Amino acid sequence: MAFEFTALRRVEFSDTDMAGIMHYSNFFRFMETAEHAFFRSLGFSIVMNHREPAVGWPRVHASCDYKRPLHFEDEVEIKLLIKEKRSKALTYLFIFSKLQPAGKIEVARGQLTVVSVMKDASGKMTACQIPAELAEKIEAAPPESLT
Amino acid sequence: MAFEFTALRRVEFSDTDMAGIMHYSNFFRFMETAEHAFFRSLGFSIVMNHREPAVGWPRVHASCDYKRPLHFEDEVEIKLLIKEKRSKALTYLFIFSKLQPAGKIEVARGQLTVVSVMKDASGKMTACQIPAELAEKIEAAPPESLT
Amino acid sequence: MAFEFTALRRVEFSDTDMAGIMHYSNFFRFMETAEHAFFRSLGFSIVMNHREPAVGWPRVHASCDYKRPLHFEDEVEIKLLIKEKRSKALTYLFIFSKLQPAGKIEVARGQLTVVSVMKDASGKMTACQIPAELAEKIEAAPPESLT
Amino acid sequence: MAFEFTALRRVEFSDTDMAGIMHYSNFFRFMETAEHAFFRSLGFSIVMNHREPAVGWPRVHASCDYKRPLHFEDEVEIKLLIKEKRSKALTYLFIFSKLQPAGKIEVARGQLTVVSVMKDASGKMTACQIPAELAEKIEAAPPESLT
Repeated sequence: MAFEFTALRRVEFSDTDMAGIMHYSNFFRFMETAEHAFFRSLGFSIVMNHREPAVGWPRVHASCDYKRPLHFEDEVEIKLLIKEKRSKALTYLFIFSKLQPAGKIEVARGQLTVVSVMKDASGKMTACQIPAELAEKIEAAPPESLT
Repeated sequence: MAFEFTALRRVEFSDTDMAGIMHYSNFFRFMETAEHAFFRSLGFSIVMNHREPAVGWPRVHASCDYKRPLHFEDEVEIKLLIKEKRSKALTYLFIFSKLQPAGKIEVARGQLTVVSVMKDASGKMTACQIPAELAEKIEAAPPESLT
Repeated sequence: MAFEFTALRRVEFSDTDMAGIMHYSNFFRFMETAEHAFFRSLGFSIVMNHREPAVGWPRVHASCDYKRPLHFEDEVEIKLLIKEKRSKALTYLFIFSKLQPAGKIEVARGQLTVVSVMKDASGKMTACQIPAELAEKIEAAPPESLT
Repeated sequence: MAFEFTALRRVEFSDTDMAGIMHYSNFFRFMETAEHAFFRSLGFSIVMNHREPAVGWPRVHASCDYKRPLHFEDEVEIKLLIKEKRSKALTYLFIFSKLQPAGKIEVARGQLTVVSVMKDASGKMTACQIPAELAEKIEAAPPESLT
């Protein structure tokens, strides 16, 4: 049962803005990068079009608290933790840390709540149970790992 | 004394993702668009490099709750309200609504907290009072306008 | 018969990079903005899903020559000209100019070739004639307007 | 003497658009990713702020020819080749290939011309010789490798 995953990423030039740091909206792109790599690590893709009906994962809440900036070419660790697992929704916690020779330093924390949905024939989306083959592989992280 | 501002924007093709809707990270770009237009409406730029020392506005918190998706070519109203005005920080509320012939419909709400900082000679940033010429033009929105 | 269109746009903070100027990839997003507004000006959307079968417009070539940088809050005119109209493809020329009190100044020129395609039942895309209702409204720009 | 470099990258959800494929502007972001990794492989950063005066690399030309689309989670090889090395400018060729179990398949080719510049005290940029420590490590690729 998986409850955490760690992705690595380097800040790119196009991630920065004229303030010389990573634009704040890009932390949300990085969260998704970690989420999708987490799915792949379990043998799935976030795009579950192979199922009938297809399952999607719209985002219903996203947030981020920024402590320190990230700069071009910084190496970033994005640690994903499952904060909450419900029958039709997942809430992730993301801890962003900058990797440095002297050790890593936390720069931001984000949170994302996603809901599993399926489309009916008319294209209308309805919340649905998290697909069983995925649900049985994941669990909420122990509370002490979230602090 | 200004406490609200309304920006309009159309969802572009490059704002969408393979789910056929605006990517969730782009709501954060749209928030900034409204913030910067609000500054311009008061005669300022968010980039206050003309001051000595220059004042910057790093983001310390960002969040968004998504209710309905936005699609390509949707016309979006982004209403900015000053939720809180402190001596060195501002918190904005953003109400995203889709404009339709039959009236507008709320699709998302976001929040952004920004801090005013100045850089010393060594480049170190320190929180500072919101520049007086700006502070005297803005005020917190009345609580009833935030609901 | 239309052969040109002018779109206006302001450079946003998230369009800039740490060099303090608009990131070069964003000129390609701006080209598309102008293209799609051009389609709307003719009563169409670039997303022709209302047709049966749906027609799409994949890009087969894109280029840009950069003469001067664009900065945050610059107002930009994007002039689209139809450089070539073929039965199944269009080539646009884009002239980017920065609007200034003293007049406008050209900053870049781009080019985009798009092909009209339709998808068969299996999802395979095949080049097709530009839909007649669109083709009859547009024509190639006179050569002298392209210089 | 280096004249080529290969970077790998996976197409992310935020790289896609509503057509279900990577947005065409993102190929230009990927080109830069390869360029900057190439610089790092030689012991440099594209951001040469450690030098006095600092050297920058504005882009003066960019182009891309698209043959096949890229999809979410595709693994992409970006092969960079130095097409031309001049005293103050470099032209790169980029060959994008999709990695598949059955072998790789070329999907696009891009080109980028960058100029080395330095800023004088007033901030004005002037083209300058490619810094010697970099110039002596790179050379143009043999013509046969460019086809």
